[in-house]
Amino acid sequence: MSAYRVLERCDELARLSEEDGPITRWYGSESLVRAADLVARWMEEAGLAVRRDALGNVIGRAGAGERTVVLGSHIDTVRDAGRYDGPLGVILAIEAAAAMRGELPDALEVVAFADEEGGRFPLTYLGSRAWAGLLSPGDGEVTDSEGTPLAEAVRAMAGDPGALGARSAPGDIAGYLEVHIEQGPVLQDEDLAVGIVTAIAAQSRGEAVFDGMSGHAGNTPMRLRRDALAGAAEFVLEVERLALEVDGLTATVGRIHNDPNVGNVIAGRTRVSYDVRHQDDATRDRARDGLETAARAIAERRGLDVEWRRRDDLPAVPMSPSVRERLARACQGAGAPVFELGSGGGHDAVTASHLTPEVGMLFVRCKDGISHNPAESVRADDVAVALDVVVRFLGLVRNP
Amino acid sequence: MSAYRVLERCDELARLSEEDGPITRWYGSESLVRAADLVARWMEEAGLAVRRDALGNVIGRAGAGERTVVLGSHIDTVRDAGRYDGPLGVILAIEAAAAMRGELPDALEVVAFADEEGGRFPLTYLGSRAWAGLLSPGDGEVTDSEGTPLAEAVRAMAGDPGALGARSAPGDIAGYLEVHIEQGPVLQDEDLAVGIVTAIAAQSRGEAVFDGMSGHAGNTPMRLRRDALAGAAEFVLEVERLALEVDGLTATVGRIHNDPNVGNVIAGRTRVSYDVRHQDDATRDRARDGLETAARAIAERRGLDVEWRRRDDLPAVPMSPSVRERLARACQGAGAPVFELGSGGGHDAVTASHLTPEVGMLFVRCKDGISHNPAESVRADDVAVALDVVVRFLGLVRNP
Repeated sequence: MSAYRVLERCDELARLSEEDGPITRWYGSESLVRAADLVARWMEEAGLAVRRDALGNVIGRAGAGERTVVLGSHIDTVRDAGRYDGPLGVILAIEAAAAMRGELPDALEVVAFADEEGGRFPLTYLGSRAWAGLLSPGDGEVTDSEGTPLAEAVRAMAGDPGALGARSAPGDIAGYLEVHIEQGPVLQDEDLAVGIVTAIAAQSRGEAVFDGMSGHAGNTPMRLRRDALAGAAEFVLEVERLALEVDGLTATVGRIHNDPNVGNVIAGRTRVSYDVRHQDDATRDRARDGLETAARAIAERRGLDVEWRRRDDLPAVPMSPSVRERLARACQGAGAPVFELGSGGGHDAVTASHLTPEVGMLFVRCKDGISHNPAESVRADDVAVALDVVVRFLGLVRNP
Repeated sequence: MSAYRVLERCDELARLSEEDGPITRWYGSESLVRAADLVARWMEEAGLAVRRDALGNVIGRAGAGERTVVLGSHIDTVRDAGRYDGPLGVILAIEAAAAMRGELPDALEVVAFADEEGGRFPLTYLGSRAWAGLLSPGDGEVTDSEGTPLAEAVRAMAGDPGALGARSAPGDIAGYLEVHIEQGPVLQDEDLAVGIVTAIAAQSRGEAVFDGMSGHAGNTPMRLRRDALAGAAEFVLEVERLALEVDGLTATVGRIHNDPNVGNVIAGRTRVSYDVRHQDDATRDRARDGLETAARAIAERRGLDVEWRRRDDLPAVPMSPSVRERLARACQGAGAPVFELGSGGGHDAVTASHLTPEVGMLFVRCKDGISHNPAESVRADDVAVALDVVVRFLGLVRNP
């Protein structure tokens, strides 16, 4: 059992890309086909029986029991990605399965989802939703930005568009565990290798559009202005202020579009995104509504119009208390402090929660919280701890 | 003497455009060549002797005296322009000259500058600088965005690239008067037809670049953030606050560039423009320096880096007290309240001030302060007042 082999394999997978240099592996691309083949070979070497489902997810199985423990993550990437977001969870799971040979639970499956990032088709959690039987054959008609239907990409993955509605997940799932880099700086800040996820946060996304009056920056006195950008700026700070007030809340304006966006012209229209997350649905709801109230008050005071556009309101997905408890015992066994934290980002575990409440996640510290970036970095000793925790977790499932 | 003819001619000029529908007339374009020909014809009809200079500026002259009064403005436009910014001043001057036949000052020149907006070549006040003898033949090598040298555009205007350094302005200028739409909402707010300009404001332009740390919007707790957009938002509001504190100051952030500008990613770098103007150089300097101090304090407090990039610091150009006084008497004669205001924007009068201190401007109310836009609009009765004021001004020059 080797953390170094896990890292070597992450490097090897990173060499499969649609671009020369940057790591970019989207669903249906030649590099993803090759990545799936490579993962299948590693699964076979680990003693797993490999099958592919209708979407091209790669599933390795050991054991003949009914109650199956699933370890999953994804092997596709965003454009110009890092090498750990997704692949680390898959490769670490294979390494753990190899290490456990002979001591496995009744049945273990390692699944490499073929699409989680959604970089090509407008379908969220495409890989795990196919696995969970949550797609229909009609989804094959969805097209990418170039008009290519999903069905064609499925065939490129040696999948079967006609069987897209078929569930490939085992019928009786004892538990689902996903190992993933944290994509945040909390573990680094706490100086910890791993953390147990409490829940995937409820998330609300949308935007506020402020409309004012464009004008000449030199000839419009301050008192006669209706400056959309100034209103939007006030909103940005209000988002920050509100989030600082509520424990565990994140609220972010990441995107701003300003019109006409010329140095000597007062902005006439400014659009700002909002992104609000909390482990608790009701707290998230209150925060989102508080931001709307703030936006309307800012607009009112400044003589601006504001349009409040809600786009998504996703519920929180709590992790299983029993999985968390086993992960805590596994951490203790591995000599790692038990530390719990929320996940602000969505993961394939969200889809798995549709099939079983017994869902858990283990986060691995990543450098400076950086993800979706070539600078993604993990420490070998942290990967060794995570591997130890997963192996101990599987042992606890076998002998609870 | 007819304000309606002035407006009709503004409409007629507006039909000359490089685009079908929008008004776009840049230097060297076929539509500007035709506009210059049309203006030359109107000048001749008004009894002026027409000449063109090396750049293609159109100059109409009456009278044989030495001391020449100049009425000037420009006939080029920005892209998708209105019909009054520039042309109104030229056409109104021609109408005034026609009305004054026989009662003119010793010598009067009406000049239609061929380029003020600088929409094609990176040379500010190209037309009036050529007229003032402030160019050199070497400037003909300056190229537009497509690599075409200015010299070629000069030839298209029937000008002479080899004579670009030659001054075409009269040797002894008794005064320079420019009529222009206000490009701001002050006259409308005061319910006045015209206003006398006190000075063209000192202007500073540049940008502040805030550098923070990009990160995942869901996985980065508020306390661990270094959000560049939040810092920039604070700066935007500080610019507004500071301007409201100082009488006559305008300070504007009109442009913002945010990176990576994605809804679920904390901004790593945000660039914001600043534009600071005041009639007094020292007040402008203090305001600009105050903004720099504020930007540095914001960055310091938030753990951001900031780069302060000064680009332009243009001095104020005061209008002549004697010209202002004559304009005030002309307003009184025309039954218009005497109202003075600053100009936040630059005009050809800036160039004229290099040749004589006897420079003045008369602003005409425009609807909602809108300019550089097809919605530019003036009232016929306001144009009639402006015409009356200019004719009375010329009479006062003749018989002070």
